[in-house]
Amino acid sequence: VSDLFWPGDERADGLLDDAALLGALVAVEQAWLDALLEAGLAPASPTLTAVVEPADLAREAEAGGNPVIPLVRRLREQSSWVHRGLTSQDVVDTALMLCLGDVLERVEDELERQVSALAALADEHRGTVMAGRTLTQHAVPVTFGLKAAGWLTGVLDALEALAGVRLPAQLGGAAGTLSAVVEIAGSPEAALRLTAAAAERLGLEPDAPWHTSRRPVTAVGDALVACTDAWGRIATDVATLSRPEIGEVTEGAGGGSSTMPHKANPVLSVLLRRTALTTPPLAATLHTAAALAGDERPDGAWHAEWATLRDLGRRTAAAAGQATDLVTGLRVHADRMAATVAGADGDLTAERASIAAFLGRPAEDTPYLGAADLVVDRVLDRARSLEREIP
Amino acid sequence: VSDLFWPGDERADGLLDDAALLGALVAVEQAWLDALLEAGLAPASPTLTAVVEPADLAREAEAGGNPVIPLVRRLREQSSWVHRGLTSQDVVDTALMLCLGDVLERVEDELERQVSALAALADEHRGTVMAGRTLTQHAVPVTFGLKAAGWLTGVLDALEALAGVRLPAQLGGAAGTLSAVVEIAGSPEAALRLTAAAAERLGLEPDAPWHTSRRPVTAVGDALVACTDAWGRIATDVATLSRPEIGEVTEGAGGGSSTMPHKANPVLSVLLRRTALTTPPLAATLHTAAALAGDERPDGAWHAEWATLRDLGRRTAAAAGQATDLVTGLRVHADRMAATVAGADGDLTAERASIAAFLGRPAEDTPYLGAADLVVDRVLDRARSLEREIP
Amino acid sequence: VSDLFWPGDERADGLLDDAALLGALVAVEQAWLDALLEAGLAPASPTLTAVVEPADLAREAEAGGNPVIPLVRRLREQSSWVHRGLTSQDVVDTALMLCLGDVLERVEDELERQVSALAALADEHRGTVMAGRTLTQHAVPVTFGLKAAGWLTGVLDALEALAGVRLPAQLGGAAGTLSAVVEIAGSPEAALRLTAAAAERLGLEPDAPWHTSRRPVTAVGDALVACTDAWGRIATDVATLSRPEIGEVTEGAGGGSSTMPHKANPVLSVLLRRTALTTPPLAATLHTAAALAGDERPDGAWHAEWATLRDLGRRTAAAAGQATDLVTGLRVHADRMAATVAGADGDLTAERASIAAFLGRPAEDTPYLGAADLVVDRVLDRARSLEREIP
Amino acid sequence: VSDLFWPGDERADGLLDDAALLGALVAVEQAWLDALLEAGLAPASPTLTAVVEPADLAREAEAGGNPVIPLVRRLREQSSWVHRGLTSQDVVDTALMLCLGDVLERVEDELERQVSALAALADEHRGTVMAGRTLTQHAVPVTFGLKAAGWLTGVLDALEALAGVRLPAQLGGAAGTLSAVVEIAGSPEAALRLTAAAAERLGLEPDAPWHTSRRPVTAVGDALVACTDAWGRIATDVATLSRPEIGEVTEGAGGGSSTMPHKANPVLSVLLRRTALTTPPLAATLHTAAALAGDERPDGAWHAEWATLRDLGRRTAAAAGQATDLVTGLRVHADRMAATVAGADGDLTAERASIAAFLGRPAEDTPYLGAADLVVDRVLDRARSLEREIP
Repeated sequence: VSDLFWPGDERADGLLDDAALLGALVAVEQAWLDALLEAGLAPASPTLTAVVEPADLAREAEAGGNPVIPLVRRLREQSSWVHRGLTSQDVVDTALMLCLGDVLERVEDELERQVSALAALADEHRGTVMAGRTLTQHAVPVTFGLKAAGWLTGVLDALEALAGVRLPAQLGGAAGTLSAVVEIAGSPEAALRLTAAAAERLGLEPDAPWHTSRRPVTAVGDALVACTDAWGRIATDVATLSRPEIGEVTEGAGGGSSTMPHKANPVLSVLLRRTALTTPPLAATLHTAAALAGDERPDGAWHAEWATLRDLGRRTAAAAGQATDLVTGLRVHADRMAATVAGADGDLTAERASIAAFLGRPAEDTPYLGAADLVVDRVLDRARSLEREIP
Repeated sequence: VSDLFWPGDERADGLLDDAALLGALVAVEQAWLDALLEAGLAPASPTLTAVVEPADLAREAEAGGNPVIPLVRRLREQSSWVHRGLTSQDVVDTALMLCLGDVLERVEDELERQVSALAALADEHRGTVMAGRTLTQHAVPVTFGLKAAGWLTGVLDALEALAGVRLPAQLGGAAGTLSAVVEIAGSPEAALRLTAAAAERLGLEPDAPWHTSRRPVTAVGDALVACTDAWGRIATDVATLSRPEIGEVTEGAGGGSSTMPHKANPVLSVLLRRTALTTPPLAATLHTAAALAGDERPDGAWHAEWATLRDLGRRTAAAAGQATDLVTGLRVHADRMAATVAGADGDLTAERASIAAFLGRPAEDTPYLGAADLVVDRVLDRARSLEREIP
Repeated sequence: VSDLFWPGDERADGLLDDAALLGALVAVEQAWLDALLEAGLAPASPTLTAVVEPADLAREAEAGGNPVIPLVRRLREQSSWVHRGLTSQDVVDTALMLCLGDVLERVEDELERQVSALAALADEHRGTVMAGRTLTQHAVPVTFGLKAAGWLTGVLDALEALAGVRLPAQLGGAAGTLSAVVEIAGSPEAALRLTAAAAERLGLEPDAPWHTSRRPVTAVGDALVACTDAWGRIATDVATLSRPEIGEVTEGAGGGSSTMPHKANPVLSVLLRRTALTTPPLAATLHTAAALAGDERPDGAWHAEWATLRDLGRRTAAAAGQATDLVTGLRVHADRMAATVAGADGDLTAERASIAAFLGRPAEDTPYLGAADLVVDRVLDRARSLEREIP
Repeated sequence: VSDLFWPGDERADGLLDDAALLGALVAVEQAWLDALLEAGLAPASPTLTAVVEPADLAREAEAGGNPVIPLVRRLREQSSWVHRGLTSQDVVDTALMLCLGDVLERVEDELERQVSALAALADEHRGTVMAGRTLTQHAVPVTFGLKAAGWLTGVLDALEALAGVRLPAQLGGAAGTLSAVVEIAGSPEAALRLTAAAAERLGLEPDAPWHTSRRPVTAVGDALVACTDAWGRIATDVATLSRPEIGEVTEGAGGGSSTMPHKANPVLSVLLRRTALTTPPLAATLHTAAALAGDERPDGAWHAEWATLRDLGRRTAAAAGQATDLVTGLRVHADRMAATVAGADGDLTAERASIAAFLGRPAEDTPYLGAADLVVDRVLDRARSLEREIP
C-alpha cells in the first residue's frame, strides 16, 4: 500500500487497508463458524481462506452496496454454514472494530513513547528560560520545561481519551433481533450466549446490537481526533519556534528542498499540522452519519462511515509515529531562548513591575517564573499515574 | 433573548447568553477576590456588580479582542484588587466552564426524563410488532419496544458521554506560570493553594493551566454532539414513521401550516434533525482550534471557541427539551404497525423460510422476533444501572 | 444587537439580525400584496407594519417550526389578503435573500476599499525587499509589494466569487406548483407574471421555485467563505510578520492586555483568523442540508440553513470591516525587512548560486527578485479591470 | 486501484490516483523541459519516463514532505535540465490541476447524460400526478415531471458551477518570484513567456503564481460539492419514494442482501447519499487550508489539500456514473402515485378549498396542479440553453 497524496502513509502499513479489512471480514466469519461449532450447532468446517483479491471483491461490492455479499458467496464454497445467522452489517461493523483495535494499539504505543520523551524534556528543561508568547507577542517568561509539560498534557489527554473507547462486536442479524441466530441456536438465551462467545473469540466486547446506535463509531473518531489535536498543537509550536528569526528549536532531521540547497524545513511539524487540519471534519462526518441512522439500517449514513474511519485511523496511526520522531529528535537551543529573553528589554517583566507598583514594593530581580516548576511537577505526577515507566 | 432564526431557542433561556456570560465573568472575578481575602492577601472589597450592559461591554471588547479588558477597567472602580494575578483568558475560560456547567445540568435533567419515558415505551411495546426496515426496505419484524430500546441506548450513551466531561477552572496568569499570583501569594505553593481555593468557590475542578491544552473544550463539544446525535436519530425515525403512507407514530402535537389547514407536521422531529445537522461541524471547529493552539495563547484559535461553544451549548439545551417533549408525547399506532406487517406478504419472513430451508426443517409460524425481548431487557438493565428511577 | 461572544459583531449592525429578518419578512408580504393589487387581483390594503417584537414572534415560531405562521396570523389583522397564494418557505427564503443582499453589498464595499489599499501597498513597496519564507524557513527574496499583490489576488478572487452570486426570489407556493397563486391569478401564465412582478419589487431575480434546489443558498455560502479565506490568509501573514522577533509589519492600532502594559497585540489579525476558522464548517452545513433536501420541503435540512446563513453573513460582514481596517492601517517596517535579509547570510541567494553553478556562470550580485515586479503589474492590471478606481 | 471501503470506487479508475498523479508530475516536468527547449534555453533531452513505482516514490516522499524531491532526483538521471527553475509546489499544484481537469471532464460528461435523461423524464411525466410532500406530510399535488425538473435544476446548477472553474498552471518558483526562471530565461518578460508556453502545452491557464492564493483549489472543491449536492437530493427522493409503503419509484436494478432473498434495495441512492454526506466537510478542509496559507508556502495547509482533493475528485467522479445509472434506469410507477393521491382523501386539495372559501367561490374539480407544466417548460428551456442536445 502507498499513498502518493499523503507522505508518511506507509507508517500505517497493515492498518485499516484493503487487505486488513478483508482479513478482518474473514476473521469475523471464522469466529462465527467456530462459535457455532463449539456450541454444537454446526459441523466442523475447514479453516476459511480469503481466496479473493481485495480489488476483485471491491469491484463486486457495488451491486449490493457492501463487500460482504460477494465475500459470503465465495466463502460458502468452503462451508455452507458461513454467515448463517449474520447480516452484512454485523460483519462489516465487527471487522472495522477489529481493525480499529489494531490502530488504537499502535497509537497508544506511540503515545506512551511520547510521554517518556516529553516527561524527560519537561524535567531536563525546568530551568531553561524562554519568552512566553501570547497572541504572537512577548508576555512573561516561561521555561521550555513548562512548554514540554503542556505538550505532555495534551498527549496524556489523548491517552485518556483512547482509554475510554469501547470496541464492541456487532452481532444482531438482519434487523437487530438476532432472528436467524435464534432459529439456529434454538432459543433467545442460547442466541445471546452464541454472540457473546463469538465476541470473546475476537477479543471484542459483547454488546446489544448497535446497528443504528453509532456511539462506538463516533467515540473512536472523537478519540482519534483528540490525538491529532495534541500533535497539531506541538507541531504548531515547533513550526513557529524553528523559524530562523526565532530559532529556539529544530527538528532532528530537517527536510530538504527541490531547489534550495540550504533548507532544513520542519517537515514532521508540517505533516502533523496537515493531519490535524484534515481529521476534525472527518470525525464530524461520523457524527452527522450517526444522527441520520434511521430505521434498522440507514440509507447511506452507515456506508459513509467506512472510508471515513479508514482515513481517520490510518492518518492518526501515521501521525503517531511522526509525532514520536518529532519529540524524541527535537533539538532545543537554550542559547537562542536566552538571547530572545535578553533582547526583549523590559517587556517580559513589565507585568512584574506593574504588580510590584500596585503592591507598593520594588520588583525583585530573580527569574520571573512564578510556579512554573510546580506546574511541571504536577504534570509529571499525572504522567506517572498513567504510565509506570516515567521515572 | 430570542432568536428568530432558531425556533425553540427560548428553551435555552438563561444559558450561555450574553447576560449569563457577563454574570459568570463577574462571578470569576468575585471568587478570586474572595480567595485573596480568605488567604489574607487582599483587604475586604464590596461585592462586585456588573454595572454595564452586555451590549456596551460587547462594543468595547473588540479593541483588545476580548470582553475582560473593558470589564476589569470598570470593576476596578469597585475594588483596585480586582483581577490582580489573573489574565483575560483565565476569566473567559473559567466563566465559559461555569456557563457550560449550567448547560450540562439542564441537558442531563432532560436526558434523565427521556430515559424514563423511553424505558416505559420499550417495556410497554415489547409485544408491538412492526416491520424492521433496512436501506428503506422491509427486512424482518421487530417490535416497537426494541426500537424504543435502541433510542434509549443512544440516550444512555449520551448520558455516559456527559458524565465523562470535566469542568476545570483556568487560573494560570499571563502565560500559564501563575507569575503574578506568586508575586501576590508569596510562593509557588501558596499560589497553587490560592487557585485551588478559587476553583472550589466556583464549583470547578482545580487544574494545571490549560491555556493551550484545549481538551476540556473539545471534550465538552464532543459530548454535546453525542446528545444531538442521539436525538437526531430518534427524530429521523419519527419523521419517517409519521409519513402518511406509514403512519405508525405521530408527534403529540403536530405543527400547522401557513396555508394548508389539514397539516400536522412532525415539527419537533424536524427541529431536532435541524439541530443534529448543524452541531457536528461546530464541534469540529473546536478541534481545529485545539490543534492550532500554539504559543502560550494562540492568535485566533482561542477566540474561535467562544461563540462556537455558545451555539453548541444553547442548541443542545434547547434540543434537550424538544427531545423530551417528543418522546413523552409520542403516539404509537400499533394498528398501523400491524397493518404494515400484514401487508408485507412473505417479505418479513423470507429470511426465516430461507434459514429453515437451509436447516432442512419447516419454518415455524410463531412471531419471528428472535431475541428482541431479551435485548430490550438488557437495555433496560443498563438504564437501571445508570438511573435509579427506572422501575 | 450585541454579541459578547464575538468581539466586533456590532460592525454587522442591521444585517441579518432578528429585526432585519422581521423587516424582510414583512417586506416580502408587502411586495406580494402590492403585486396582487397592481394586477387587479386584490383590493388596496393599508401598508403593513410588523406590530410584533421579534422576541415574541420567536417564541411563537416553535409550534409550527417557522416564524411566518404566527406573523401571518398577526398581519391578517391588517389585511385579509396577506400571504394568499404563498407558503411559509416562500417568505422565509425570499426574506433571507433580501437580507443577504444587504450583507453582500456591505462586503463588496469593504472589498473595494481593500482593493484600493492593497493596490497602493503593492505599488508603493515594489522595491521593498524582504525574505520569502516557505515551510517557515527562508527561501529566496521577495518584495513586500509582491506580498501585498498576493493579498490583493485573494481579495479580487473574493470579489469575483461574490459577483457570481444570484439572489432569486422564492415564490412557488405550498409544493412549488404555484397552486394557490393560479387560483387567484386565473391562469398559470398570470401566476408567473405575478411572481415576476413581486420579485422585481423586491429587487430580486425571478426564478422557478427552488424549495429543494438549494444552489442559491450554497453558492452564497461558498462565496462568503471565499472572502474569509482571503482575509484569513492576510491575517495569518500579519500575525507572523508582527512577531517581535520578525517585526516587519505592525497593525495600525494594537490591542492591549488586561495585565501586561507593554503589549500591542495584532488584534484585528487575531479576530480575522478566528472568523476564518469558523466559517468553512458553516458553509459545509449548507451543503449537507442541500444534499438532504428531499420531498417538496425537507424535514430539517431547510431549517438548518437559517441560523447558519445568519452566522456566516454577519461574521463575514463584521470581518469585512476589520479587514479594511487592517490593510488600510498596516505599518510596514522596511528597515526590519532589510535587516532580516541582511542577516540571512547566503540563505536567500543559495538558489541563485546553485543555478549559476548549474549554468556554469557566476551568480550576479543584483537584487535577486526575478519577475516580482512584473507579477505585481499583472495583479494591478487585474485590479483595474475589476475596479475602475485603481490608478 | 480498488477501495474495499468505498463501493463503486472503480468507476473513477484512472482519475486522481497514484499512477495518474505520478504521470501528471512527469508531464509537468516534461512540458517545462519542452518549453525550455522551444525557447532555445536548454538542449534537447530524451522524453522523460517515470522509472519509479508510485509506492517507492511515496515512501521517499516523507523526508522532504512531498513527492517531487525524490522524483526530480530520479528524473535528473535522464536530463540534468529537469526541474530547473521550478519548485516542488509548482509541479504538485500543476499536476493536480491536470488530474482535476480529467475529473471535471468525466463529471461533465455524466452530468450531460443526466440532463438528457432528466429532461426526458420531466417531459414524459408532465401529466403524472403525485402527492407533493412537505415536512414528510402530504401538501398539494405535484407531477413527477415537476419533480424530475427539480432534479434537473440541481444538475444544471452543478454544470454551471463546473463551468465557472478555472484550471491555472502554477509556475512561480521557490517563492513566487520566478527567480530561477529569470536566471535561465534572461529577463522577467522572457520568464513570463516561458511559463505561459509551458501552461499552454499542458492545456492549462497561465496565471500569476498562486502558491498562497488558493482560490483555484477551493473553487474546484466547491463546484464538486455542488455536484454531490444535486445527486444527494435526487437520491434522498428516490430512497423515500422507493419505500415499500410508498413504492412510487424503483431503481433499475436493486441491490440484494446477504441474508434476505426478497430484498431489492435502492443501492445507488444509498451510495450517492453516502457520497453527499462525506464531501462537504472535505471542501471545508480546503477552505480552512486556504485561510491558513501564510508566508510564501504554508506549513501544513498546502499539504492538507492533496488527499482532500483526491478524495473529493474520485468520489465525485464515481458518484457521477452512479447518478447517471440512477436517473437513466429509474422506473416510475404512475399507478402507485395515483393510488397515493386517491387515498389522500381531501388532504391534497385542502388548500384549494381554503382559498376558494376565501375567494368566495366553489373550488374547481380539475387537477390541482397550478403552473407545474409551465415550470417544467422553463426548466427545459434552461436545459436547452446549456445543452444543445435537449430536444
